[in-house]
Amino acid sequence: MEISALQKARYEYAPKLPGMLRHGIADICVKEGEETQSVADQEKIKALFPNTYGKKEITFQKGANTSVAKKQVVGVILSGGQAPGGHNVICGLYDALKATNPENVLYGFKNGPSGLIEDDYLVFDDEYINAYRNTGGFDIIGSGRTKLETQEQFAIAAEVCKKHGITAIVIIGGDDSNTNAAVLAEYFAANNTGVQVIGCPKTIDGDLKNEDIECSFGFDTAAKTYSEVIGNIERDANSAKKYWHFIKVMGRSASHVALECALETQPNICLISEEVAAKKMSLSQIADYIADSVAKRAAKGMNFGVAIIPEGVVEFVPEFSALIAEINELLAGSKADAFNALPTWKEKYAFIENGLSKESMAVFAILPEGIQQQLFLERDPHGNVQVSLIESEKLFSALVADKLAERKAAGTYNGKFNALHHFFGYEGRCAFPSNFDSDYCYSLGYNAFMLIQYGYNGYLSKVSNLSKPAAEWVAGGMPITKMMNMERRHGEDKPVIRKALVELDGKPFKYFEAHREEWSENTCYVYPGAIQYYGPAEVCDITTKTLALEKGE
Amino acid sequence: MEISALQKARYEYAPKLPGMLRHGIADICVKEGEETQSVADQEKIKALFPNTYGKKEITFQKGANTSVAKKQVVGVILSGGQAPGGHNVICGLYDALKATNPENVLYGFKNGPSGLIEDDYLVFDDEYINAYRNTGGFDIIGSGRTKLETQEQFAIAAEVCKKHGITAIVIIGGDDSNTNAAVLAEYFAANNTGVQVIGCPKTIDGDLKNEDIECSFGFDTAAKTYSEVIGNIERDANSAKKYWHFIKVMGRSASHVALECALETQPNICLISEEVAAKKMSLSQIADYIADSVAKRAAKGMNFGVAIIPEGVVEFVPEFSALIAEINELLAGSKADAFNALPTWKEKYAFIENGLSKESMAVFAILPEGIQQQLFLERDPHGNVQVSLIESEKLFSALVADKLAERKAAGTYNGKFNALHHFFGYEGRCAFPSNFDSDYCYSLGYNAFMLIQYGYNGYLSKVSNLSKPAAEWVAGGMPITKMMNMERRHGEDKPVIRKALVELDGKPFKYFEAHREEWSENTCYVYPGAIQYYGPAEVCDITTKTLALEKGE
Repeated sequence: MEISALQKARYEYAPKLPGMLRHGIADICVKEGEETQSVADQEKIKALFPNTYGKKEITFQKGANTSVAKKQVVGVILSGGQAPGGHNVICGLYDALKATNPENVLYGFKNGPSGLIEDDYLVFDDEYINAYRNTGGFDIIGSGRTKLETQEQFAIAAEVCKKHGITAIVIIGGDDSNTNAAVLAEYFAANNTGVQVIGCPKTIDGDLKNEDIECSFGFDTAAKTYSEVIGNIERDANSAKKYWHFIKVMGRSASHVALECALETQPNICLISEEVAAKKMSLSQIADYIADSVAKRAAKGMNFGVAIIPEGVVEFVPEFSALIAEINELLAGSKADAFNALPTWKEKYAFIENGLSKESMAVFAILPEGIQQQLFLERDPHGNVQVSLIESEKLFSALVADKLAERKAAGTYNGKFNALHHFFGYEGRCAFPSNFDSDYCYSLGYNAFMLIQYGYNGYLSKVSNLSKPAAEWVAGGMPITKMMNMERRHGEDKPVIRKALVELDGKPFKYFEAHREEWSENTCYVYPGAIQYYGPAEVCDITTKTLALEKGE
Repeated sequence: MEISALQKARYEYAPKLPGMLRHGIADICVKEGEETQSVADQEKIKALFPNTYGKKEITFQKGANTSVAKKQVVGVILSGGQAPGGHNVICGLYDALKATNPENVLYGFKNGPSGLIEDDYLVFDDEYINAYRNTGGFDIIGSGRTKLETQEQFAIAAEVCKKHGITAIVIIGGDDSNTNAAVLAEYFAANNTGVQVIGCPKTIDGDLKNEDIECSFGFDTAAKTYSEVIGNIERDANSAKKYWHFIKVMGRSASHVALECALETQPNICLISEEVAAKKMSLSQIADYIADSVAKRAAKGMNFGVAIIPEGVVEFVPEFSALIAEINELLAGSKADAFNALPTWKEKYAFIENGLSKESMAVFAILPEGIQQQLFLERDPHGNVQVSLIESEKLFSALVADKLAERKAAGTYNGKFNALHHFFGYEGRCAFPSNFDSDYCYSLGYNAFMLIQYGYNGYLSKVSNLSKPAAEWVAGGMPITKMMNMERRHGEDKPVIRKALVELDGKPFKYFEAHREEWSENTCYVYPGAIQYYGPAEVCDITTKTLALEKGE
């Protein structure tokens, strides 16, 4: 197998552990903290998790290892979308497991949670593990999106564990996967299976974050990879001086990625979905906001710029969500047949005009025709509009062009506006993890094994103090139930980990808010360049701006 | 001004010069080689360049500097599209100029060749130059696409030079810009202006290359930046195992970038425009070629893959070019009015069916409707189809989907095919130059000044032996006329630098050809990762695969 020069070099990288885990397995002891309670709905969560609720937060520290000597057979699962560093979680887990007892065994269930249910697995050994150290991707065992949430699935999982003598399962996933990990942990405890469950916080979206989890892994590398190419595009814009680049970045429900990229690259515009929702902004208002920047810069002779658009932003525009709901209603069930039977777009348009409320028709009317057609022609198997297919970067540049045409007619704008479009998502999810993510993930995995070894169940592997050098990181565990509250999901009240949206009174957004006016009118671009794995520490070991600001650095 | 940690660190990087230029200005002497002649059409080229034709190739070597002591006032111009390293050409030029005589002056003409004509310039000093060392972009003075080619422009250029006492102009550009540099050099010589002209070979496309110029600058960094994100996407594909990614990369007339990216990342498919043209491939054949890979992989359970598409490939498909020509004819002049007056696409389609030849209609009929409409609705100011707007990555994935549907109906394919699309171009043109491009460009600029100092005119700054460490590089100059031949351009015979297309019997293509069948069926992805500027030499100082193969490494 041919591998790149960088991959070969990265095999040699020794990830940095938190200082307290560096003395060797024999010298890691547990310090128990306070009993915990969930962030909200304590009584309801407690009732749902009678065996795993209210446990103590723990941290590890230097001291004689007092865990029970017992052969451990651990199964690990990668759940959901790829995030840089996933391989290192498994490597850290493997190294701690083997260092504790060479007889210990690590199973990898293939292609996500379905691997556990289907008993599809491999057994790791040194040779296999070594080919994945400090690499990106989830190809070590594959990932998948099957959810482990039903009693039937849990019963099968228990059987599979029993068959292999599995003592613990580690689930590497986002908020939903860790919610399910907590439910599985409770099931295993309630049924006296003796199997423990430990979660690890993964997602490039950065929305698995709370007072215990400072950041999910992968966010650092993915945001830096997007910022690299956004910075390159900014420099191109500032060299050619003739294009406005509309750049969509991943993040359907939260705008952490967009915000982090903006903090790193200082573009002229960055939309934040949470702000759009809070201010109940209309498409027209957003377009005007961007057009203001285009016009001000044009007046200074700068007919170029860069705008960052979070993937999910249109879903946060109240009038647009209302329109989508009306379209779904308009074409529900057999009503779609009448619409589909109309031979031309003109007739279809008349049907739409007749069917939508006046307010929604006004929103529909300002959309570019391509997007109008997409809303009606490309629907999912349930007949619903596929909002995720909407190319919002093209939508906003088209709306801005309309606004500028109006201003030109009114004599208030006399520039040139040529737009180019980009979407960055898949480019960053499998990058080689930054040194930060390499270290953090390895530590999460190593730490996860210590939690197993000390008998904890339903805990999230927790490594904190992350804005400091790794030597000062704090390793421990937190009951997952502590992060939960009750939310309405698909018509039912469910115990879930609260998803972290961008806080409009948080320091990262406040910093952005304080600077964005200057950035919108002037050219204040910052070019982060490619992630560096070697060289000066101030280049290689910087954390995200988001984390630095949140921790007051 | 806020700058990134990497930019700050890169300021400190000292570019490596060829060994022969390392002893200081006082120790650089000239070794003259043979007189040269153009690669073809010698008599015609000689007649067009009576003052600059047939000059000797030269190399520099260690020895007493015998150049005439004379105050030099040099003007530099960035021409055409951005390429990483342009700033370092100017830095190298500046450093050699100032090291020779602190009284020497360097002018930078702004926003491309038009800056010379409009006398729009700045004068470089240490502080200004230092802010651009080892950085990407052309923002140091901006670039532009104005061509210097008329006698009127040359006369103005001569006046501007006279006004400032300019002794030489350095033009940093691609094949066209260097062709124009040669013509300007001849003009200056014929009119006894005393102004010299030196060219520097720039283009990320890699098509300014010949037996003298081993590669144009910027190709290394740009191709590596695209390969970084292509590798990341490959790893994502191999982790999620559910998408085929169709990735378009820049390169309208030559496929060097696509080929280099393929050599670096080993995707399942890479189209090479030159091969498509040589084999006179049809759209259907290309689609079948890709569909074969999809089907073979699906049969092995791999419903994912990566295909690289060079930007200009459709223009190399003979039947497609014929179709475009017919459409341009069909809508020429007032004929477009009749077409535009038709109210529906259905009626327009009938008009098209009636107007195209049977062969072209057959090609038109297999195109996805979106592209059909684009060909007729989005035309340039002359009424011509805008081929560059065609999203060929989407075109081919749609054609492949059609082929697979046929195969599914025939029972010869039973996989899943979900396509995602990407286009990489602007992402790489302004990246921080790799160590190779940093060194090469600085050397080109330094060397350009030595050519000026020794009185050469109409020369290209030439640095060769590039697959070896910089200490072994060879610095010198080559008359631009040596690289010229006569070609038909816009209905006239013109002396031009021959554009280097991918040679189908060259080593890079041969290597690709020998491996592509295996790559198309199996998963042989290589993940190059981000460009590294520090760390192990085998990671930081590797050249392109193209150069290594061409030089037999």
